[in-house]
Amino acid sequence: MTRPITLFTGQWADLPFEELCRLAGDWGYDGLEIACWGDHFEVDRALSEPDYIASRREILDKHNLKVWAISNHLVGQAVCDDPIDLRHKDILPPAVWGDGDPEGVRQRAAQRMADTARAAALLGVDTVIGFTGSAIWKYVAMFPPVSDEVIQEGYADFARRWNPILDVFDEVGVRFAHEVHPSEIAYDYWTTHATLEAIGHRPAFGLNWDPSHMVWQDLDPADFIWEFRDRIYHVDCKDARKRIGNGRNGRLSSHLPWGDPRRGWDFVSTGRGDVPWEHCFRTLNAIGYDGPISIEWEDAGMDRLQGAPESLDYVRRLNFERPTASFDAAFSSTRD
Amino acid sequence: MTRPITLFTGQWADLPFEELCRLAGDWGYDGLEIACWGDHFEVDRALSEPDYIASRREILDKHNLKVWAISNHLVGQAVCDDPIDLRHKDILPPAVWGDGDPEGVRQRAAQRMADTARAAALLGVDTVIGFTGSAIWKYVAMFPPVSDEVIQEGYADFARRWNPILDVFDEVGVRFAHEVHPSEIAYDYWTTHATLEAIGHRPAFGLNWDPSHMVWQDLDPADFIWEFRDRIYHVDCKDARKRIGNGRNGRLSSHLPWGDPRRGWDFVSTGRGDVPWEHCFRTLNAIGYDGPISIEWEDAGMDRLQGAPESLDYVRRLNFERPTASFDAAFSSTRD
Amino acid sequence: MTRPITLFTGQWADLPFEELCRLAGDWGYDGLEIACWGDHFEVDRALSEPDYIASRREILDKHNLKVWAISNHLVGQAVCDDPIDLRHKDILPPAVWGDGDPEGVRQRAAQRMADTARAAALLGVDTVIGFTGSAIWKYVAMFPPVSDEVIQEGYADFARRWNPILDVFDEVGVRFAHEVHPSEIAYDYWTTHATLEAIGHRPAFGLNWDPSHMVWQDLDPADFIWEFRDRIYHVDCKDARKRIGNGRNGRLSSHLPWGDPRRGWDFVSTGRGDVPWEHCFRTLNAIGYDGPISIEWEDAGMDRLQGAPESLDYVRRLNFERPTASFDAAFSSTRD
Amino acid sequence: MTRPITLFTGQWADLPFEELCRLAGDWGYDGLEIACWGDHFEVDRALSEPDYIASRREILDKHNLKVWAISNHLVGQAVCDDPIDLRHKDILPPAVWGDGDPEGVRQRAAQRMADTARAAALLGVDTVIGFTGSAIWKYVAMFPPVSDEVIQEGYADFARRWNPILDVFDEVGVRFAHEVHPSEIAYDYWTTHATLEAIGHRPAFGLNWDPSHMVWQDLDPADFIWEFRDRIYHVDCKDARKRIGNGRNGRLSSHLPWGDPRRGWDFVSTGRGDVPWEHCFRTLNAIGYDGPISIEWEDAGMDRLQGAPESLDYVRRLNFERPTASFDAAFSSTRD
Amino acid sequence: MTRPITLFTGQWADLPFEELCRLAGDWGYDGLEIACWGDHFEVDRALSEPDYIASRREILDKHNLKVWAISNHLVGQAVCDDPIDLRHKDILPPAVWGDGDPEGVRQRAAQRMADTARAAALLGVDTVIGFTGSAIWKYVAMFPPVSDEVIQEGYADFARRWNPILDVFDEVGVRFAHEVHPSEIAYDYWTTHATLEAIGHRPAFGLNWDPSHMVWQDLDPADFIWEFRDRIYHVDCKDARKRIGNGRNGRLSSHLPWGDPRRGWDFVSTGRGDVPWEHCFRTLNAIGYDGPISIEWEDAGMDRLQGAPESLDYVRRLNFERPTASFDAAFSSTRD
Amino acid sequence: MTRPITLFTGQWADLPFEELCRLAGDWGYDGLEIACWGDHFEVDRALSEPDYIASRREILDKHNLKVWAISNHLVGQAVCDDPIDLRHKDILPPAVWGDGDPEGVRQRAAQRMADTARAAALLGVDTVIGFTGSAIWKYVAMFPPVSDEVIQEGYADFARRWNPILDVFDEVGVRFAHEVHPSEIAYDYWTTHATLEAIGHRPAFGLNWDPSHMVWQDLDPADFIWEFRDRIYHVDCKDARKRIGNGRNGRLSSHLPWGDPRRGWDFVSTGRGDVPWEHCFRTLNAIGYDGPISIEWEDAGMDRLQGAPESLDYVRRLNFERPTASFDAAFSSTRD
Repeated sequence: MTRPITLFTGQWADLPFEELCRLAGDWGYDGLEIACWGDHFEVDRALSEPDYIASRREILDKHNLKVWAISNHLVGQAVCDDPIDLRHKDILPPAVWGDGDPEGVRQRAAQRMADTARAAALLGVDTVIGFTGSAIWKYVAMFPPVSDEVIQEGYADFARRWNPILDVFDEVGVRFAHEVHPSEIAYDYWTTHATLEAIGHRPAFGLNWDPSHMVWQDLDPADFIWEFRDRIYHVDCKDARKRIGNGRNGRLSSHLPWGDPRRGWDFVSTGRGDVPWEHCFRTLNAIGYDGPISIEWEDAGMDRLQGAPESLDYVRRLNFERPTASFDAAFSSTRD
Repeated sequence: MTRPITLFTGQWADLPFEELCRLAGDWGYDGLEIACWGDHFEVDRALSEPDYIASRREILDKHNLKVWAISNHLVGQAVCDDPIDLRHKDILPPAVWGDGDPEGVRQRAAQRMADTARAAALLGVDTVIGFTGSAIWKYVAMFPPVSDEVIQEGYADFARRWNPILDVFDEVGVRFAHEVHPSEIAYDYWTTHATLEAIGHRPAFGLNWDPSHMVWQDLDPADFIWEFRDRIYHVDCKDARKRIGNGRNGRLSSHLPWGDPRRGWDFVSTGRGDVPWEHCFRTLNAIGYDGPISIEWEDAGMDRLQGAPESLDYVRRLNFERPTASFDAAFSSTRD
Repeated sequence: MTRPITLFTGQWADLPFEELCRLAGDWGYDGLEIACWGDHFEVDRALSEPDYIASRREILDKHNLKVWAISNHLVGQAVCDDPIDLRHKDILPPAVWGDGDPEGVRQRAAQRMADTARAAALLGVDTVIGFTGSAIWKYVAMFPPVSDEVIQEGYADFARRWNPILDVFDEVGVRFAHEVHPSEIAYDYWTTHATLEAIGHRPAFGLNWDPSHMVWQDLDPADFIWEFRDRIYHVDCKDARKRIGNGRNGRLSSHLPWGDPRRGWDFVSTGRGDVPWEHCFRTLNAIGYDGPISIEWEDAGMDRLQGAPESLDYVRRLNFERPTASFDAAFSSTRD
Repeated sequence: MTRPITLFTGQWADLPFEELCRLAGDWGYDGLEIACWGDHFEVDRALSEPDYIASRREILDKHNLKVWAISNHLVGQAVCDDPIDLRHKDILPPAVWGDGDPEGVRQRAAQRMADTARAAALLGVDTVIGFTGSAIWKYVAMFPPVSDEVIQEGYADFARRWNPILDVFDEVGVRFAHEVHPSEIAYDYWTTHATLEAIGHRPAFGLNWDPSHMVWQDLDPADFIWEFRDRIYHVDCKDARKRIGNGRNGRLSSHLPWGDPRRGWDFVSTGRGDVPWEHCFRTLNAIGYDGPISIEWEDAGMDRLQGAPESLDYVRRLNFERPTASFDAAFSSTRD
Repeated sequence: MTRPITLFTGQWADLPFEELCRLAGDWGYDGLEIACWGDHFEVDRALSEPDYIASRREILDKHNLKVWAISNHLVGQAVCDDPIDLRHKDILPPAVWGDGDPEGVRQRAAQRMADTARAAALLGVDTVIGFTGSAIWKYVAMFPPVSDEVIQEGYADFARRWNPILDVFDEVGVRFAHEVHPSEIAYDYWTTHATLEAIGHRPAFGLNWDPSHMVWQDLDPADFIWEFRDRIYHVDCKDARKRIGNGRNGRLSSHLPWGDPRRGWDFVSTGRGDVPWEHCFRTLNAIGYDGPISIEWEDAGMDRLQGAPESLDYVRRLNFERPTASFDAAFSSTRD
Repeated sequence: MTRPITLFTGQWADLPFEELCRLAGDWGYDGLEIACWGDHFEVDRALSEPDYIASRREILDKHNLKVWAISNHLVGQAVCDDPIDLRHKDILPPAVWGDGDPEGVRQRAAQRMADTARAAALLGVDTVIGFTGSAIWKYVAMFPPVSDEVIQEGYADFARRWNPILDVFDEVGVRFAHEVHPSEIAYDYWTTHATLEAIGHRPAFGLNWDPSHMVWQDLDPADFIWEFRDRIYHVDCKDARKRIGNGRNGRLSSHLPWGDPRRGWDFVSTGRGDVPWEHCFRTLNAIGYDGPISIEWEDAGMDRLQGAPESLDYVRRLNFERPTASFDAAFSSTRD
């Protein structure tokens, strides 16, 4: 059997979970990567309400959908972030934001991430996807001057804050899959290596491979799969397109809003961007990845109701299996 | 006469001014772009000590050096920055840092920039080069989500803080030349347009063209000169080299220190990088720029005592003038 | 509603109008961009025969086709051209060619273009597409030497000849959409700027965006839309493919006939060439263009009966609308 | 009528001929390029068993398949090869391998290739496709030093061994179509020129155009068609994809097995690689090639049962004909 | 001995010949490629004044300069051109222009080119460099539509007009070296092939290899040398630089004057452009070219008094010879 | 002190050692990488003649030259090679070739390589550079089909043959530096990894970094240094230039002789090719390589007497040291 294809619900959290399930089921998705925001999957209720999990399962079953992973990017973001500001208030559950005192927010976010592992276990899935936040992302320009000691302290801060969370993951048999992404502790190839070293390569911490931010950083998404082949715990198919080359659009995209043609890059519907998808899927085959393929759909220039089924169709065509015999075996003059 | 070539003293401020003057004079520089830190040019002393200016002039004359511009990047950085943190403490004069309360720092920095204009006037130069800082640089990744209102407020904050400073510039007949640079309000092509609009394109605010950060953002430095040809107030020749293309080194350079071969780009000695210098100089000729050409030298892999004279030699060869007659005039069969 | 897709009838003028309407209707086109040659739309008859317009409308209605614009490239070409020669005789209506005296041809062509505006108004469309011709195109190689005065006089000649025509356009409420194209006064980015300046940017004169000749000149068709966003009056989707890079095929294509594999570029069926169509459509969305999307089909290597429906299918898939809400709104923890 | 599309049976020789015919017929292929190994087409039986040819024809007819060419790459390989080793034993018919003495193997292989021409004539086809082998391929690295005399002797050896075989081809009215390929006497553009010269450009020896090995050698497959337009006797559509550019995967592919993502290039299903198929088909049109288009399918990462019909569908869309009239004829104001 | 390096005097014809000789001698040139305009070399005087040739030789000798070729581009241009207009009047000798009747101008120009061969013979040089003009250059855009018959007639017109001139060249033992160039009958790779065929590849007509216009047409100048290796009669080193890639500057350069940064390409001082000089010189070595290397200097952005000696220095460094022995001969264990 | 620059004597072995020493000394080289062929360094004499070493030292001293490494590529080649043929006879010492029986040649070559280590120790150098040969290089095309088992056996054969040799290296305290090169067991990035694994990464076996063959294989020479930073035992600066891109010149270079312009790549004088030398030297600085920089000079198009001093000059300019302090330290407002 080929790998299942799921829809990540994060960009659909304005819709009630049941409505989204109806849509995804009708389009033919095999399952969902459920976001822990909106009403899609509420960690506190999962832990406190005895039949919450069953209620989610019931909706999924009704629409013939399965679930292999849940996601909590927004809370994870607050674990290490500095500064904590109004952006976080806008995306965090009120109970995590609380009074907004930064250190308090971070600690409540850490607690909630541990709870997310517990809720995942209750739901019967073994993977939680998310962000880590970062105390040093804000120093990415390296000016005013930042010493390497400050940078190393950023990795240490990450390790101090996440190791206890990962201990809970280990306890309940769930893995965390970090999405390599700007604003996070690991956002490219070398920072991913540094991040894994900071926590001693402990198996509880792996990666959610999402190539969209690799494209504009000129990272090779397929090589990334090969390099971190023992840490690819989940796959998110989000696409991006560069619009670089006219000497005016810059890599940093000028603080312009999504969809503005002057940006140097933008997210686009999966299959319409610059990700070398086919080679990536072939590399996933090569490393033996057999988990879900999840479509994370963001495109400021297209209606999502058009995009979600189109992307499913696109990914299905790439999601083929390797043959069992070598083609040049047919040249042999000897037969068994 | 061709344009004079100066040395920017910012990366040499650990040396006493007199020592640097001796070096620059010996190498054959025409003058200096003097940094307002170290003991090179102290704004407070220039305004308070009657013979401070004369003492600077005397040293310069002794080494046959002239000055057309002074620079105060480090103080300018604090005018709009948020957060203000230990990085700023490390680079600001103690009097500007004060107790470190962020808003106080910003206001004292604004005051000091106005004073810099006054000091420049006393020194007899009409250009101050520097940075602006930025309240929104930290949102460059656009995650957690940032609304366009927040971005626009960043430009407005810049205008509110800098307009009063620029009023002083106008009063004393000096222009500010902002260096387009990450961490600043204007760091690429489109943000430069937005910045100029935020202050109504007032002539007191122009640009210090420095192509080094354009290289890795994929901006065309020569086109930049042409596009902003009425705002090129000063020229800094700093070079950078990309090391992108292996799929591992990223554009953001992974928080790695200068000189690390895994960075996606790095500063290198002027003439050893990817800046298309010759076309840039031809474009400077085309727009009629006749101010100083200043060499800003940074290269973590080379000794500066080797680099500074080498760069001077390199730039001299490019700093040629346009001819007065067209070559195809020689084809004419009619002579006057 | 998405924009309508039309077929430009210029390359089909050997077919009777009714026959072409039948084909286009069957293929599913929404309408036609009708050429003023062959029997498709005859300007003189439209102005002189009371029921000519109605007869055209009747045929269109029968095949469920609409019309938003008419085209008169061939007559427009003669307005400024120099030399006027047998090529023009072959493409002009006999009444415009007359005795072939060049200046007489130009003046009759100018008259006919004014009449085309009048006929367009009668037909109820507000856009006439066409060419301008050029007195200086022949100097494109700049050898024998051409002075800038001669070039400027070319723009002035254009303005002198077209301003009176555009006055008629203004009178009858119709706009002229010039197709940027070799052989014309505006054939690339900078000549388009110069052309618009020559006539004071009067609104009667805009552009028919056709990217096919931009491809081999290395112009960016999407940037062109953005730059001239207030002058994009019509869109023609013609495609071209470069075959440059072997060091033998040149940009100028060696006077070789269409379809010869040694040409450096060639027209190909829309969607099979090098035009970055998707980004162009996204940019059309960004500037709010809501007029017709017309397919101009030319491919010397493919049968047009295969190409026209294939191209319609291709363009339909790109002609999508922008969403009304931002995708990251779904991340918000606050709901209205 | 457009050209027929056939399937090359070489990579399917582990299947009985009848089973393969059933598959190919069901997929809609027009015919087969039959391999002379497995039980697909046995040269010795064709010459010795009176009804063997009829039996093949019968199977083909039953599945509505035709045949225009047969292939004997494996035996051809042994004609010039040096060294002859266990690789050859594995692919040669036992009667050709015999006792494995190299020179004996070569002579028996030469005899069998002449017989292949005779068998082709009996089958009623005029083209035999194959390899030549090479005595100098092993010197491709040019180290230890190889003099040009040694290289020229390699071409002479080829001519000595193949001219007698080609005499038989001439006798029976069949042409040999060599597949340009590493391991053979002609493997790129200049070696193909040298090879044709070695045998005096005799018409019995032409080319089977297969672009797959051209891709990674940076040869232009379409230019190749044009250059050797009088020697394109057959067309094999095999595709390949480069995975070069990260500085680690090399052109020579590191002796890694097919399908390994570290290889610098790999074969992929026709239409999924880097061959510029459309321009190649347009060039085939330009030279008037009207023989079969054969799909040679090899992809270590995809099941062949998925690939074969997908490739047929892909090639069908490119296999279009040229129009009979020029598109700009429609601009003429004169009608016949 | 290495090949001599000469200076082409065409762009210096506003200077008296003696003054230019003084400059070129001082810079160290080995000789001149003398232009037949200004007072540098006057064909009519050479044929009519008995001691004119001696007077030229005397000046050359005085400055230690030799001559291997003379050039008459400007008159050659008029032989086939259509239209003939004021541009020609400006560059032709009054006696050739006469009353300006186009056909008369063409015939007088043809006569003068024949005389140029005679004058070359008198001077003792065997090569005349020049242009041919073209009746069809003006149709380069192929719109209004141009049939292939019209193009072929252009080549025939060239042959009719130049064959009689070349007969005179043959009579006096001089060769014509056409400079491949826009505005001429041969301006790229394929038109050069067509041109040579039009005159039956007669040896009197060869090529002056000048790569400057190849650069922006994407032709490979080194391959050009190899392809036409039996027709490279002279070498002109003129350089050009592309400024393509920002999507705004076009290949045709927008009728903008030389030196304008918006042009897509421009001439630059030899060695500062995009010509792959070293590989070209190696290819000249490979074909055994042993004639003069002439520097044709044009750069609208640099003073020619700086450029001419700089270019000489640049070319000298490339003008090296091949070794006589192979480097890997040193590996041999056997010695003679 | 910067690293010493040496000349590899392999391509000069037709000259007597003393003559070459005189040349190298005059040019200013710091020392030699002495080849063990010609009369430069004879292993058998070094081990058998008591004063041989002293005689070499004497010549070196006389010309002010030092030695840090010796090279025995030619004998090393025969250790694993298959086939062994006349090419080997031409480059091996007669005593190693013996009767030419392949296995005997291999064993005598192995013995001689062990002796080379002993001779190096006597000479007082700790590095022997060379080739390994390969039993599987001939299968690089992977056709006729080669199984992975055969490939793995090739690595095993290498390990079996070289481990005993390396044991001798260990005994005498000398390291072997293999030059990654076609024809050898390790010729690219992945084969180098496989080779190191085959012998358990034993420290006796490291690499001679020579980037010339990396260029045309599209390997990144600087990344190679970083990846194998603990195995870079020696540096050879040989340069190569690609001539790919016209679609005719192939990567494998068509068996054409060195210097032929149709080859896809060729060796050229160090500094005239495509090796990114400056970044490579910066990376050597980054890994702390402090051994000799040896120039291996091969250029079939240039006289070696011109090339050797030119290359020395080129490399000297790149061979700079890193600074001891960071440039942004000068921004600090605090001084110690």
